[in-house]
Amino acid sequence: MQTKIAIVGYGNLGRGVECAVKQNADIELYGVFTRREPSSLKTLTGVPVYHIDEILNHQDEIDVLILCGGSATDLPVQTPTLARFFNVVDSFDTHAKIPEHFAAVDAAANAGGRVAVISVGWDPGMFSLNRLYGEAILPKGEVYTFWGKGVSQGHSDAIRRIEGVVDARQYTIPVEAALDAVRSGAAPTLTTREKHTRECFVVAAEGADRAKIENEIKTMPNYFADYDTTVHFITQEELLRDHSGIPHGGRVIRSGKSGLSGEHTHIIEYSLKLDSNPEFTSSVLLAYARAAARMNREGMCGCKTVLDIAPAYLSPCDGAELRKRLL
Amino acid sequence: MQTKIAIVGYGNLGRGVECAVKQNADIELYGVFTRREPSSLKTLTGVPVYHIDEILNHQDEIDVLILCGGSATDLPVQTPTLARFFNVVDSFDTHAKIPEHFAAVDAAANAGGRVAVISVGWDPGMFSLNRLYGEAILPKGEVYTFWGKGVSQGHSDAIRRIEGVVDARQYTIPVEAALDAVRSGAAPTLTTREKHTRECFVVAAEGADRAKIENEIKTMPNYFADYDTTVHFITQEELLRDHSGIPHGGRVIRSGKSGLSGEHTHIIEYSLKLDSNPEFTSSVLLAYARAAARMNREGMCGCKTVLDIAPAYLSPCDGAELRKRLL
Repeated sequence: MQTKIAIVGYGNLGRGVECAVKQNADIELYGVFTRREPSSLKTLTGVPVYHIDEILNHQDEIDVLILCGGSATDLPVQTPTLARFFNVVDSFDTHAKIPEHFAAVDAAANAGGRVAVISVGWDPGMFSLNRLYGEAILPKGEVYTFWGKGVSQGHSDAIRRIEGVVDARQYTIPVEAALDAVRSGAAPTLTTREKHTRECFVVAAEGADRAKIENEIKTMPNYFADYDTTVHFITQEELLRDHSGIPHGGRVIRSGKSGLSGEHTHIIEYSLKLDSNPEFTSSVLLAYARAAARMNREGMCGCKTVLDIAPAYLSPCDGAELRKRLL
Repeated sequence: MQTKIAIVGYGNLGRGVECAVKQNADIELYGVFTRREPSSLKTLTGVPVYHIDEILNHQDEIDVLILCGGSATDLPVQTPTLARFFNVVDSFDTHAKIPEHFAAVDAAANAGGRVAVISVGWDPGMFSLNRLYGEAILPKGEVYTFWGKGVSQGHSDAIRRIEGVVDARQYTIPVEAALDAVRSGAAPTLTTREKHTRECFVVAAEGADRAKIENEIKTMPNYFADYDTTVHFITQEELLRDHSGIPHGGRVIRSGKSGLSGEHTHIIEYSLKLDSNPEFTSSVLLAYARAAARMNREGMCGCKTVLDIAPAYLSPCDGAELRKRLL
């Protein structure tokens, strides 16, 4: 069964979805919808571009929309609006606002008889799944999430807003000693500072006060003050040459006990090492788009998250093949 | 909502389930059913023991049976027989026979209007899940399963059948160089010998020909001939002192590509490090017993595997709490 998708919003994530379609023979890309003037936008694969205002004219041609806008302002409006007319998948990742986003999208998707899958990606997404599986299997235990080594877009942006900074890239790095302590089964209590360090590569404007910039970074509340932070000043050329990728990753570790008196320890670790954060997220979005189309064909509707979707829905293969090949 | 379970078969797995119940406040253990004379069996927690022949008299008292028999002869008969009258969960792990087991159990569970979950544990089980998630997200890639370091019961038994062997314990050990090659993203083709080694601790009878035993082990077809195998002769006391645990573990690694021309590599690794293989398997069985009860209450029936069950069914918490806490 073919699934016809369309992309809404053409940034890193939208381009990632466009690439991922090439790796899925059962998925076809109908086009890209954008707020920009369509003729101004050149896609990687030459797929058609339409203005977002025309999207309802294409309703019958599209099985699932993949919403690639941002969580701050785009998705809180777009997902509930479009879920009334289309099956949709988004990567809404403002953790604290997921319950209210879910409620708004659920109402719209139910009204329209569509399936909407929100907060798809790796965190939230695959990491959430692993937190759930871990605590369901080992209820007496602790869960730890470590991020990196990888580029944090939010922290890089925060540095760029400092006076005298031309460009910057920030890496979040897990502390090996903390990882080892968790993997030992000791179930340690770890502070923010003990879990991650932050490394910053900064291009300063000519004549800028580097000591002042470094101090402003290291003392920035929420972003850096609670971490051991290292700052390196480099040239724009070095930044482009050595830090233009968007790698990321991380791990969810569940440490739990079993036995009559908790005498046995088990460690479950799920880890990701990603060359391209947006391309991996796009790949997850595409698998859940396939699931959304199939669930809607089976008569389901409403808002779902990765926690609500049986794994087999993500695969183009049927149950008999999956049992034979993967169990 | 409380779930009342009963255990069928009281070996390592049955005892593991009995212990795991203590860690799940929403699960209650009704009793143990056995083929042995009930009064001859002493349970760890003093839970009642019944003869298996009486099980149908207890139908109304039990939400889910956890079948803890062996895959060779017990489960192929027990699971289809009991799935007609009870929701059941088993850990059937003869990979090649899962399709026919599924068919037999599906017919019975549908006829009885019950939910039967088969092949629950870690392999098949959690490893199967991770193979599915991995290939659905990164369809262009390779999957690798490594086992160990851990005790293989089947290989230990095979050594014990050799003349002159009193007792034995066999460890399956993944080859670090192979793990490193896979994690590098090189997607290597690995032979059986390149992936795992086997280490054997053997208690020989007095006067037995050790060189002959060692040779018989190392050349045993299927079990050892294709591996680099090390044999250590030790005393029965040493075996009991140093090798009486049943640790195991392993990892499923998906290595895949993304990007317009596959230029980015991603590594997904799921790993388990288990102090007690049967107790961990029991913990997984219990989570799926909860799911089976809930799915049946919602009107579902038939045979399911871990691939068919939405993760949220494994948790005693409701959707709103899971979204708030885990996404």
